[in-house]
Amino acid sequence: MEQNLPHTISLLARTPAALNALLRDLPETWTLRNEGENTWSPFDIVGHLIHTERTNWMPRARRVLQFGETKTFESFDREGPIREKQGKSLGPLLDEFGRLRSENLDELRALDLRPADLELRGRHPFLGVVTLSQLLATWAVHDLTHLHQISRAMAYQYREAVGPWNRYLGVLQCAGHSSPS
Amino acid sequence: MEQNLPHTISLLARTPAALNALLRDLPETWTLRNEGENTWSPFDIVGHLIHTERTNWMPRARRVLQFGETKTFESFDREGPIREKQGKSLGPLLDEFGRLRSENLDELRALDLRPADLELRGRHPFLGVVTLSQLLATWAVHDLTHLHQISRAMAYQYREAVGPWNRYLGVLQCAGHSSPS
Repeated sequence: MEQNLPHTISLLARTPAALNALLRDLPETWTLRNEGENTWSPFDIVGHLIHTERTNWMPRARRVLQFGETKTFESFDREGPIREKQGKSLGPLLDEFGRLRSENLDELRALDLRPADLELRGRHPFLGVVTLSQLLATWAVHDLTHLHQISRAMAYQYREAVGPWNRYLGVLQCAGHSSPS
Repeated sequence: MEQNLPHTISLLARTPAALNALLRDLPETWTLRNEGENTWSPFDIVGHLIHTERTNWMPRARRVLQFGETKTFESFDREGPIREKQGKSLGPLLDEFGRLRSENLDELRALDLRPADLELRGRHPFLGVVTLSQLLATWAVHDLTHLHQISRAMAYQYREAVGPWNRYLGVLQCAGHSSPS
């Protein structure tokens, strides 16, 4: 299936409210614990989503529209999410994510992209040539990959508490599959 | 980590609102498509959650409290979710799930379970002896396993649209890990 811009926007518009409903005021057992060394808690993931909202999706879309393949995307800053969450609690981070997402979608809608625009090409530092359509589809699936990760990190906290049911619960068998983006 | 009843209830109480925020009025591209033959769409999954809300968690908890290990839990009815969703659209199913969950949590809170109650034992048809604590922890992780599955089923629809980014998106590498429950 091809990327469909209204469908992509519908999904992107819902993620902040879904995370808000799931995570706001939830006990820290669920929100601050991770899956072990060098893994992320839901709190860390919201910090990462804020960072990518600021630096990744719309800045890269603007770069495609302005420079095409001639100017490579900025590399991902691994320290960015750490700065985003310093000294903050989860509630204000969820607010910030919602505000940034809303602004970015307003900007995306205002671009009034046509099918031909979606075929415009940019250059990723590792992946090479990518299309604007692929970038926007990735924005949506990136939300889903982190919702998938949040559900797994939360389930991990009860991996022993479920006793013999653990073999029936797919989320407890998930190996993570993460990779730097 | 042991099951903590207030933490379990906090999570269980949020799932209907999180699914509502994610799925209500979302295009059917996201809600009605699955991951291929014999897999579930988000719509199917909400039907399953309604069915387990009616037949699994609180009925089994009541059976533990009333009969202990002497009366085995009812087996899971694989056709139940199909009946739940027949002729319905997703909005009313989300409403139904929220209503049933709310009623079940009211009943759970009214039981005013003490630590000793949580160690009471029941008998699962395949797993053998399980505790009430394990049953309640499994209720929460069952929500998370299906949130994990919903995010994967949605991402699957854009597995080609993301182009070369697919290798970076963990949710697209997830093998599912599902097993009959």
